[in-house]
Amino acid sequence: MTAGAAPGVRLYEVGPRDGLQNEPGVLPTEAKIALIGRLAAAGLREIEVTSFVSPRWIPALADAEAVAKGIERREGIRFGALVPNLEGWARFLGAELDVAAVFVSASETHNRRNVNCSVAESLARFEPVIEAARTAGKSVRAYVSTVCGCPYEGPVAVAAVVRLARALAALGADEISLGDTIGVGYPRQVRELVSAVGEALPLSRVALHAHDTFGRAVANVEAAFEAGVRSFDASVGGLGGCPYAPGASGNLATEDVVDLFERSGIATGIDLDLLVDVGIWLEDEVLGRRLPGRVLRAKRGERERENRKGRT
Amino acid sequence: MTAGAAPGVRLYEVGPRDGLQNEPGVLPTEAKIALIGRLAAAGLREIEVTSFVSPRWIPALADAEAVAKGIERREGIRFGALVPNLEGWARFLGAELDVAAVFVSASETHNRRNVNCSVAESLARFEPVIEAARTAGKSVRAYVSTVCGCPYEGPVAVAAVVRLARALAALGADEISLGDTIGVGYPRQVRELVSAVGEALPLSRVALHAHDTFGRAVANVEAAFEAGVRSFDASVGGLGGCPYAPGASGNLATEDVVDLFERSGIATGIDLDLLVDVGIWLEDEVLGRRLPGRVLRAKRGERERENRKGRT
Repeated sequence: MTAGAAPGVRLYEVGPRDGLQNEPGVLPTEAKIALIGRLAAAGLREIEVTSFVSPRWIPALADAEAVAKGIERREGIRFGALVPNLEGWARFLGAELDVAAVFVSASETHNRRNVNCSVAESLARFEPVIEAARTAGKSVRAYVSTVCGCPYEGPVAVAAVVRLARALAALGADEISLGDTIGVGYPRQVRELVSAVGEALPLSRVALHAHDTFGRAVANVEAAFEAGVRSFDASVGGLGGCPYAPGASGNLATEDVVDLFERSGIATGIDLDLLVDVGIWLEDEVLGRRLPGRVLRAKRGERERENRKGRT
Repeated sequence: MTAGAAPGVRLYEVGPRDGLQNEPGVLPTEAKIALIGRLAAAGLREIEVTSFVSPRWIPALADAEAVAKGIERREGIRFGALVPNLEGWARFLGAELDVAAVFVSASETHNRRNVNCSVAESLARFEPVIEAARTAGKSVRAYVSTVCGCPYEGPVAVAAVVRLARALAALGADEISLGDTIGVGYPRQVRELVSAVGEALPLSRVALHAHDTFGRAVANVEAAFEAGVRSFDASVGGLGGCPYAPGASGNLATEDVVDLFERSGIATGIDLDLLVDVGIWLEDEVLGRRLPGRVLRAKRGERERENRKGRT
């Protein structure tokens, strides 16, 4: 952690939601609550804790209310959750969280496969959710997925992403998170995309949600930072990016982003050692397997070598 | 592969040497020869095939002569090997390879731990090797390691790297490969380093040897490319970067670099599908375990899903 400096970037932790949603198996509610508490203690200030989609869609997050009820509220920490529709909104409101996150794809086919309606229908569905959230004084985050490419349609037009970002901002979303859902993006593309979006709305309202499927997440974060983005989504340990699962989402590990920025002299407000502790705890005490994050792996290896030295 | 375009970058494959040197266990000579042939068939045009260091130092490469003798020479492909001293040079010359590679560290402590002499003594040791190589019409490649940081000394001065690169170029090295041996480098640092080196010698004589220990290898390659470097070292599948070995070198996977550049519209001359074939062959037929390369993992997953679809 760059001591004393005001954070130069904001990190939005998606592990407890996006990560666990893509993990095999269902974690006990208590483990989720403990995970969120540990992330907050490591310095994360924005944490997406669950999703108010139907438990039929995502059984892993069926305990949304219990998680929201169990987490310790702390000054200066905002907790978010996915809100797919007005039913979800009612549950979100009852859970007393801070950031309502809606989501739509830049690709028609991906949107239809994901939520069984068109992009326009998704926007229409979110309009009353966003209005209700703003009336209730909640922040609204809007995910735009497949911004660098779609698994069904292939290339996605920059203009489609810009149009959607502008529409969501006009509906009242405070932050638009641009998601490279399948990780095909590359730095030049990200730079061009961010520049184009930056002409439609202030980049202070834009985040990047990079996936590491092809090893380019950190490069894309760097490119987006250079282009003016200051908010980045990541998942502790790369949770949800199980390297041996087919269709792995390849979540970018929060430690990898923290280490990138802190090494570059850009403060994140996060204590990397504490965050590595969270990753090791997840591996050893919760999941019983190794996570894919590179910095976690390297730091864990360093600690194990030091421990062996200490014993001999 | 960007069809028909002249390559915009050169990739120097280090898997058979740097990769295998860091793998647990010793591969049969025949497997090494087959690996090199498959890499050549995938389009690699510069391949480091072995090392003429003492077999006492690196038992995994004790069959250097047999490997060099066994590989099929092809028009337009250059084969290299590590040459630590004049004894190694005599062996290299007998093996009829094309590129003699010498190596020295930008950090005194690292150099001493690695080869038990000072940086100045290393340079003095390489002077007659380089002279002999040039007289014999061989290319000379010089590795400068720990350019972004040293495991013993920590930060490494840019000026030390520039001084060493200039000295090696003056001795007659055709290409200087800047090695981020422990993977601590970050894009801004790489950009600054390359700019500084570029003031001392033409960047057409400079390569980047990035390690992925902390997940930043691709980001650093992109940064070096932007700064003018056009030659990059990589190891098929990330060979040598065993994710579960403590002290893993974290070699950058060749497929990850190929995919980065080809997606960015920069031709590499390499057929990514054939290269993925090589990685899968290594995993299944040679090593019996998965390699860490991200693109290899993603492409292998894609193929396995398609195969399952094809069967149902």
